[in-house]
Amino acid sequence: MINEKMYCLGSQRSEIRELFEYAKRRKAEIGEENVYDFSLGNPSVPCPKEVNSAMASLLDSENPVALHGYTSAEGDLNARMAIAEYLTKLHGLTVSASDLYLTAGAAAALAATLTALVTPGEEVIILAPYFPEYRVFIERCGGVVKEVGCEQTSFMPDVAAIADAISEKTAAIIINSPNNPTGAVYSADVIRELSEMLRRKSSEYGHSIYLIADEPYRELVYDGIDVPFIPCYYEDTVVCYSYSKSLSLAGERIGYVLVSPGANESRRVYSAVCGAGRALGYVCAPSLLQKILPYCTGKTSDINVYIENRQLLFTNLKKYGYDVLRPDGAFYLFVKSPVDNAHTFSEMAKRREIIIVPSDSFGIRGYVRISYCVSTEMIKKALDAFAALARDVGLKGDNTNG
Amino acid sequence: MINEKMYCLGSQRSEIRELFEYAKRRKAEIGEENVYDFSLGNPSVPCPKEVNSAMASLLDSENPVALHGYTSAEGDLNARMAIAEYLTKLHGLTVSASDLYLTAGAAAALAATLTALVTPGEEVIILAPYFPEYRVFIERCGGVVKEVGCEQTSFMPDVAAIADAISEKTAAIIINSPNNPTGAVYSADVIRELSEMLRRKSSEYGHSIYLIADEPYRELVYDGIDVPFIPCYYEDTVVCYSYSKSLSLAGERIGYVLVSPGANESRRVYSAVCGAGRALGYVCAPSLLQKILPYCTGKTSDINVYIENRQLLFTNLKKYGYDVLRPDGAFYLFVKSPVDNAHTFSEMAKRREIIIVPSDSFGIRGYVRISYCVSTEMIKKALDAFAALARDVGLKGDNTNG
Repeated sequence: MINEKMYCLGSQRSEIRELFEYAKRRKAEIGEENVYDFSLGNPSVPCPKEVNSAMASLLDSENPVALHGYTSAEGDLNARMAIAEYLTKLHGLTVSASDLYLTAGAAAALAATLTALVTPGEEVIILAPYFPEYRVFIERCGGVVKEVGCEQTSFMPDVAAIADAISEKTAAIIINSPNNPTGAVYSADVIRELSEMLRRKSSEYGHSIYLIADEPYRELVYDGIDVPFIPCYYEDTVVCYSYSKSLSLAGERIGYVLVSPGANESRRVYSAVCGAGRALGYVCAPSLLQKILPYCTGKTSDINVYIENRQLLFTNLKKYGYDVLRPDGAFYLFVKSPVDNAHTFSEMAKRREIIIVPSDSFGIRGYVRISYCVSTEMIKKALDAFAALARDVGLKGDNTNG
Repeated sequence: MINEKMYCLGSQRSEIRELFEYAKRRKAEIGEENVYDFSLGNPSVPCPKEVNSAMASLLDSENPVALHGYTSAEGDLNARMAIAEYLTKLHGLTVSASDLYLTAGAAAALAATLTALVTPGEEVIILAPYFPEYRVFIERCGGVVKEVGCEQTSFMPDVAAIADAISEKTAAIIINSPNNPTGAVYSADVIRELSEMLRRKSSEYGHSIYLIADEPYRELVYDGIDVPFIPCYYEDTVVCYSYSKSLSLAGERIGYVLVSPGANESRRVYSAVCGAGRALGYVCAPSLLQKILPYCTGKTSDINVYIENRQLLFTNLKKYGYDVLRPDGAFYLFVKSPVDNAHTFSEMAKRREIIIVPSDSFGIRGYVRISYCVSTEMIKKALDAFAALARDVGLKGDNTNG
C-alpha cells in the first residue's frame, strides 16, 4: 500500500533533473570543461559576504541553545521585524512582522499558501509557461490546475484569457515575475489591468480571488527596470519570497510568506498559512538562517555576473540567428526552437555538448530554456558550439560572424 | 475562500503552546526566576562542540556556492554515506546511502512518510498517549486516525488491542520509543511480539502494514537501557529520525527517513517518500546542516544534565506522594493527576507557578507531562512548589520531608 501518485512523482525525475544528471554523466566522460550545462537554476555567484560573516558571528557569540533552538512557528520576531521594516521602506506600504511567516524557501511558501487557500476541488490558474512544480503543489492539496497561456512574444499575462478561465471555483492565480522560464518582468500596467479584472471577478463571484506572487527572482532585474510590488496594486495578494537567488542560498531553504496587510481576510489567511505550515510538517524555518536575516535583508549577491552573462548570450545568440526574448529579469533566456520540436532541438544541442531544457515541461511547446547562472567563462566557450548548432539547424546568422 | 481546516489548525494553538505562551507572559509579570516552566520539549543542553566547529570550518573553507547551493533532493551523498556507515556499524544491519532521505527534522520525515504510504481513506494506527501532531499529519494527507491505548502502568504497546484495530484499510502504525509523553522505551520483547502480529496481519490482508518508527529521542536513554532498532525486528519499517534532541538542533530542522533495506517494496517506498517530499515543497534539507553530519554523526549533547534532572524530579515527586512513571528515556515525566481532571490539576499547578501539560491533547486523560529539558537549578527551585502543590491536593508524602 503505497500512494501511487507519490511513487510517480518520486520515481519520474523532472526533465530538468534528467538533463542535469545527463550533463553530470557526460562531464565524467569527456571532462567537465567540455560540457556546457545550462540546465539548472542554481545560483553561480557566491552569497554576499554578510551571510557567512553573520553566521560566523552568531556561532561565536550566541548561546547555542537559543541559536539552534525552536523559534516560534511563524519565525523569529527580530527577523520578521527586519523584513517588515525593509519592505515598508522600499515599497511605501506598511508591512508588519505579523504579516510575515518565515518558510523553508519559496517552495515551502507556495506549498503552505496553496494548502491554506485551496479547498479540494477548487481551481488555481497558472500562466504558461510556468514553473513545473506549481502543478505538483496544487494537485497535492486537491486543487484543480487551469492553465492559461501568456501573450506570445512578450510573455506578459493575457488578462482577457485569464478572465475567461475564472469560474466560481477559482481560489487563486499564481504569477511569477521576474519569470522562470521566460525572464519577463510584468509591467505595472499589466498588473493594474489584472488587478482590476480580479476585483471585478471577486465581486461577481462574491469571494476573494487571491493573487499568489511567487518572487524568488525579485532582485534579479536588468537595465534598472522596476518590479511592481503586487500588494500595492491588489489587496488580496500573498507573496511567496525566497532568499535562494538574491542571497545565493538555494540549498539552505529560507524565505517567507507575506500576507498582504490589505487583504480582505488578512488575519484569517495568515492563520490558515500557519495551519498549513504546521500540517505539512514545517515546524519552523531553519533557525540559523532566520537569524542572519536582520544582517542580510536588502543585500544581494553580485548580480553583475548575471548582467554580463545575459548580455553575452543574448547578443551572440541573436547574431547567430536565434529568435530570443530579451529577458528583463531572472537568469533565464527563452529561445524559440528553430526546429519543429523543442525536444529534437535539445537533443541536437546535446550533440554539441550544450544542455538546454525543452519548454514542454513548462507547459508550452516550441522553446528551450537556457539558464545563464553559470560561469561567464563557460558561456564564452559555449558560444562556438551555439554557432555550430545554429548552422546545424540552418539558421541564417549575421554574416560578419563565422 | 480559505481552507477551513487549515484556518482551525493555525488559529487554535496547541495546548502545549498555549501553556508556553502563558509561562512567557507570567515570567514578564513576576520575573523569569519565579516561574517553573515545564511545558516545552526544547533541548536545554547546548549542541556538542563538533556542531559549531564543523559549521565554522565549512564556512571558512568551502566554496559558498557549493556549500549553500541545492543538494540532491534525497540529500548530500557524503552525509548519507556517513549516516549509513554509522547505522550499519551500530546495529549490524547493512544500511546504504540510497536507503536514506534527509529531511528538515522528524516532522518533515513523518509528513513525507505518511504522504508516501497513505492513500486517502486508509487508516493509520497511533498509540495513546501520542504526540498530538500525528493526528494533524495523518488527517492532512487524507488518512483516518485509529487510536489504540497502551498498556496501563507500563505504557508499552498493547499488541492484542492493536491487532483488533487492524483492518484491510490499515496502511501503517506509528510507534515512538523512547516515548513522548511517557518516557517509556519499548522492550525487544514487545517489539518482537508486535512484529510477529504485523507479519501475520500483513499476510492475512495481502499487503504490507508499515511500522513508522518516530525516533527523535533514540539517544536519550538512562541506566544503559537498549532501544531496539526496529528494522532489525520488522522488515516493513520506516524510521523517522531527527537530530533535534540528540544534537540540540531543534530549530535547525535536520533529520532523515530511513526506509528499511529489508522492506518488501523498499525501492518503491523510497521513491514515494522522495515524491512526497517534493509534493510537500521540501526541495532539500538545509544544506549547511546536511554537511555537518559527517562530523557529528554518533555525537550527542551532554545528556548527563537530563540524567540528573530526571533523578531529582522522579525521586522527589515520588517522595511528595505523586504517582510517577519512571522514565527510561526521552526527557518527560508522566505523572498521574492526583485530582479527577488533569486540566484542573494543571490550573492548580499554575497557582504554584508550575507549568505542566494535561495529557488530554496526547489522547489520554488523567495525567500531566513534565518536560525536564530545563535547567537543573530551576528544578531545584521548583521542588518546594511541587511539595506545596502535593499538599494542596492532599497527597500523603514521605513524612520525613516537610
